[in-house]
Amino acid sequence: MTVIDDPQAAPTTPVVPGPLPPSVGGIPEARSYRLKQKVLGPALHTDQLEHQRLGKPTALAVFASDALSSTAYASEEILRALVPAIGFLAFTAFLVPITGVLVAVLVILVFSYRQTIKAYPSAGGAYIVTKDNLGLLPAQVAGVALLTDYILTVAVSVSAGMAALYSAVPFFYPYRVPMALGFIAVIAWGNLRGVKESGRIFAVPTYAFIVSMFLMIIVGVTRGVMNGFATIPPPDGHIAIGTGVVTIVLLLKGFASGGAAMTGVEAISNGVPAFKKPEAKHARQTLMIMGVCLGTLFLGISFLAAKYQAVPSEKTTVISEVARQAFGGGPVGHAIFFFVQAATMLILVLAANTSFADFPRLASFHADDAFMPKQLTKRGHRLVFSNGIIALAVAAAIPVLLFQADVSHLIPLYAIGVFTSFTLSQAGMSVRHVKLKEPGWRLGLFVNGLGAVTTLVVTLVIGWMKFSHGAWFIIILVPVMVALLMRLNKQYEHEAVELIHDVDDAIGTPVLPRHSVLVMVGDVDRPTARAIQYARTMHADETRAVHLAADPEHALDLARKWEQLGLTRVPLDIVDCPDRRIERALLDVVCEELSGDRTEVSVLIPKREYKHFWHRLLHDQTSRKLAKALAQVPHANVTLVPYHLGSIHISDEEWEAFHASKQPHH
Amino acid sequence: MTVIDDPQAAPTTPVVPGPLPPSVGGIPEARSYRLKQKVLGPALHTDQLEHQRLGKPTALAVFASDALSSTAYASEEILRALVPAIGFLAFTAFLVPITGVLVAVLVILVFSYRQTIKAYPSAGGAYIVTKDNLGLLPAQVAGVALLTDYILTVAVSVSAGMAALYSAVPFFYPYRVPMALGFIAVIAWGNLRGVKESGRIFAVPTYAFIVSMFLMIIVGVTRGVMNGFATIPPPDGHIAIGTGVVTIVLLLKGFASGGAAMTGVEAISNGVPAFKKPEAKHARQTLMIMGVCLGTLFLGISFLAAKYQAVPSEKTTVISEVARQAFGGGPVGHAIFFFVQAATMLILVLAANTSFADFPRLASFHADDAFMPKQLTKRGHRLVFSNGIIALAVAAAIPVLLFQADVSHLIPLYAIGVFTSFTLSQAGMSVRHVKLKEPGWRLGLFVNGLGAVTTLVVTLVIGWMKFSHGAWFIIILVPVMVALLMRLNKQYEHEAVELIHDVDDAIGTPVLPRHSVLVMVGDVDRPTARAIQYARTMHADETRAVHLAADPEHALDLARKWEQLGLTRVPLDIVDCPDRRIERALLDVVCEELSGDRTEVSVLIPKREYKHFWHRLLHDQTSRKLAKALAQVPHANVTLVPYHLGSIHISDEEWEAFHASKQPHH
Repeated sequence: MTVIDDPQAAPTTPVVPGPLPPSVGGIPEARSYRLKQKVLGPALHTDQLEHQRLGKPTALAVFASDALSSTAYASEEILRALVPAIGFLAFTAFLVPITGVLVAVLVILVFSYRQTIKAYPSAGGAYIVTKDNLGLLPAQVAGVALLTDYILTVAVSVSAGMAALYSAVPFFYPYRVPMALGFIAVIAWGNLRGVKESGRIFAVPTYAFIVSMFLMIIVGVTRGVMNGFATIPPPDGHIAIGTGVVTIVLLLKGFASGGAAMTGVEAISNGVPAFKKPEAKHARQTLMIMGVCLGTLFLGISFLAAKYQAVPSEKTTVISEVARQAFGGGPVGHAIFFFVQAATMLILVLAANTSFADFPRLASFHADDAFMPKQLTKRGHRLVFSNGIIALAVAAAIPVLLFQADVSHLIPLYAIGVFTSFTLSQAGMSVRHVKLKEPGWRLGLFVNGLGAVTTLVVTLVIGWMKFSHGAWFIIILVPVMVALLMRLNKQYEHEAVELIHDVDDAIGTPVLPRHSVLVMVGDVDRPTARAIQYARTMHADETRAVHLAADPEHALDLARKWEQLGLTRVPLDIVDCPDRRIERALLDVVCEELSGDRTEVSVLIPKREYKHFWHRLLHDQTSRKLAKALAQVPHANVTLVPYHLGSIHISDEEWEAFHASKQPHH
Repeated sequence: MTVIDDPQAAPTTPVVPGPLPPSVGGIPEARSYRLKQKVLGPALHTDQLEHQRLGKPTALAVFASDALSSTAYASEEILRALVPAIGFLAFTAFLVPITGVLVAVLVILVFSYRQTIKAYPSAGGAYIVTKDNLGLLPAQVAGVALLTDYILTVAVSVSAGMAALYSAVPFFYPYRVPMALGFIAVIAWGNLRGVKESGRIFAVPTYAFIVSMFLMIIVGVTRGVMNGFATIPPPDGHIAIGTGVVTIVLLLKGFASGGAAMTGVEAISNGVPAFKKPEAKHARQTLMIMGVCLGTLFLGISFLAAKYQAVPSEKTTVISEVARQAFGGGPVGHAIFFFVQAATMLILVLAANTSFADFPRLASFHADDAFMPKQLTKRGHRLVFSNGIIALAVAAAIPVLLFQADVSHLIPLYAIGVFTSFTLSQAGMSVRHVKLKEPGWRLGLFVNGLGAVTTLVVTLVIGWMKFSHGAWFIIILVPVMVALLMRLNKQYEHEAVELIHDVDDAIGTPVLPRHSVLVMVGDVDRPTARAIQYARTMHADETRAVHLAADPEHALDLARKWEQLGLTRVPLDIVDCPDRRIERALLDVVCEELSGDRTEVSVLIPKREYKHFWHRLLHDQTSRKLAKALAQVPHANVTLVPYHLGSIHISDEEWEAFHASKQPHH
């Protein structure tokens, strides 16, 4: 029997009823963190956040991959809209003109974005421009539309990349879906690590693609002019022609399908600060170069496809047919063909990578403005917005799975989002010109106004033509998402205001006149001893032990032991608990203690900490359940007093005594 | 600017910087609990735990369903072993003799268990008997073998029940697996609710089965004797005969296959206390009746199957063929046939139910002896061992899924476990007779010795004959499981000894000479105010606020605000955290504070409590992460100081001020 000494008296040799605390830095890293270090590389410090500056050639490679890569499927998508209805007429009369109209839209877009770059040299994405000029709500629409589009860019680009692969090597066709998912995972992993040398990685495939495409167009056109253009026989020997009637609706459908070529044009305006000084000037020049490349390639590919009459089929892309035809069948032609396909595949995968840079940043803008979960603003292990990267990878995997990596099924969802954000961004620029009236604002207003009207018309055409093919989903999704984000924002704002409400007075709140400490006791053991030691440190007005008696026999036994201990300063309170719902019983005890609003209650729960994960599994988590229940009660302050098992050496005598007490009795 | 008053002075009107505490009983029940109430019925109090006493007829129904139901498939399994090898010879020469040998084993078992009932009138299951006489390790083997068998009883019985169903109504054949899983779920649910009226539920199907089986045998034999036994044409018009050679191994295979009929014989000895007084006498009489019924039915069914030459097939059971033949084809015969099938299905489902009563109880015995997780000893909402019930349902669903509810594939796994536990239990009884030498011990030793040897031989035969068909899995599983349980026991024992090591001294441990309180601060807001109010309640030797600065700008801002507050008693300590790993930074702070083993550290973490689940999702769980990291450190006592959001009304002026501060700046 032990009698407690006076807690006020200074003890001479403190006995710790558990292991000693570790020294600074003496706690090993968690296994999950060590794994993270291995998979993602060493952690980066916040001050290592830096911006790479890009020269024009590299910048073109980095920012243009998304836009240029869409030429890999844009002409084909126009044909897919026209050929089934009007057959060869699509090639002879309409493919090139429709491409021409789209290139005209591109020209308007390029000139519009030159204005944006001038006005927003630090970051001129649609979200910022719209927020700045039209307000937060339209900015949410522009942002959500763009985010949707980034998700689809990943899905479309990776799927088109797989199409480039299996057009060259048909063996891969059955594996396109898992391979597409694999590529998404690899790109996400690279971005989680932080793609440092992004410039170099981008330059090779982008320039390989540009060069090979120009080569294809030049060789194809030259050969065609000299020897005439040989048409490619359709896969089944003939093509089925539908009505054969050319209607406005049909041409608009072709136009809407080709609109996907315009995605990615906004990339440069988002990334102006990454250019070498003078940023705006370099960015505008790069934008022009990109526009020229994109327009020329798009027209050239459409021209050759029209001349060759390349019919779209399931397992080969139109662009691969064109390349095969342009370079001819010899060994050199074959080698170049495979090179073109490889370059196409790589630039498409890179285009997906662009979304992985843009989506997390845009999502962090939303989150900074409290329109998306705060977690999206958090920089991870390698200073990238990890949560945004993971969210994008998961979101992009869904359409790939749903549509089995089929580009044609994904395209109708695509482009409507990007043209919505173009429209809002250009409208924002127009408003800005009117508001600020800077020098040359009239020209600017004309350019951006034309851009806004054009893109609005394109948006409406795409929405109308592709409505039943999947655009309806985006048209519903965007407003629903915006409504959700507004709700989220309201919640965040309410919290923010509530948290600082009258905070100066709150900080000065005097302490409550009474402090009561309840020590939860299950048994007379070392964790209990530890909790009592800590409880006595608090010098509360009242300290007592509480046992929630789910097992009446055990409770009686405990009461007897407690009496033997002679713990007069810490009386034991046994609370009957016939329904075994100890959480409810504890809530009642604590609420009773708190009644009158003048008491602060500390509930000390001894918590056993185990050395190994599986040891913990062998016990029910009573301490956690109690703490969770008490979290509902204001002024109930729960302390988990840890007791670390596995630190005491057990002597042989103790073991013998224990086993003797366990022998079965007859 | 607010200056804190003297915390020692009694405050007159305490201001609470959060909502007021609720009154006793004022906290609503959790949604999960309300759902539980609906699904499982109102909670039962511990004192409502009572034992039903059963009369002999009801007891026979409750305890015999498992054993009797196995006659529904035992004869068929013997035929499945013989017919493919020796064709019609199986019917004409071997089915009835093999059944006869098995019935002889049954007789030995019944007499052996009469001894067990006499010796263990309170509970004579294999686990208890083996533990009592052979020790804890053999008891684990017996227990694990039986537990495995209970799992398989559920799988086999439910699958055989489905076979009875689709033999009568072939429409159900394709749905047998989901229906079997559905039955397991329903039985588990019924047992979680606590099957109160078990006696009544059992009586009807069990007696319906007994009566219909006897009726079938009497009608079948009478008709056969009068008009001769008409054989059933085999499904394909003929049966393929293998080697046609009769070997010892072949007959042993047939014997091993029929051994499944013996499962469930031990049920009565487990449940003696449930009988009306005098319990042992009634139990022994019921055992005899059950033995006679089981033997007669088994022999009768085998006899008719042999006479009718009922060839086993995939979609109809042998017993359904026998019933169809015995009752003839008229409308009355058809009606009786469906009745027989219904009774067969019901008794098989009930047999599964028996396992749901036995498995959780046996698992709780293991857990009581610290050989299985403690959670298995916990009585749930309705006073049943809920965790055991759920574990059994999940475990039984696996073989049903794996073998697509095919009885023949499950049988080889079955029976070996039950015969292992028979052997150990009978060996235990033999040892007991030798040790105690009670009156009549010589006869007892003979009976139980014969039982032990017989069951050992049967165990070896089954293990040998069925080894390659699946018994190998059980032969590996049981020792592996036993080894695991031994490891578990060692862990539990070590914990138990460590927890009470030197506990009297530990309880008297004096308080540590220094108490330091660290208040984790993220911002100057109401949760921080609340944590500081609580911190000052503690009257510690040192109290300071700690900010882990992952964002240096925010930290500077906080430091400025803190200075303005004039909180001189609670200085702010800003800890640089350039790697954004605030858990590690906090660990270092706390370990530094603890150094010297003479300090008790209280870490107060303000924790926002949200009204709705989704509100919480909008924030990262920093407080939880910090608490989890600190759980590794002895003498670091973490208190989560709750702040409950959603209680403060925000005035319009406050909203305006907030929005004004949020306007974008040009």
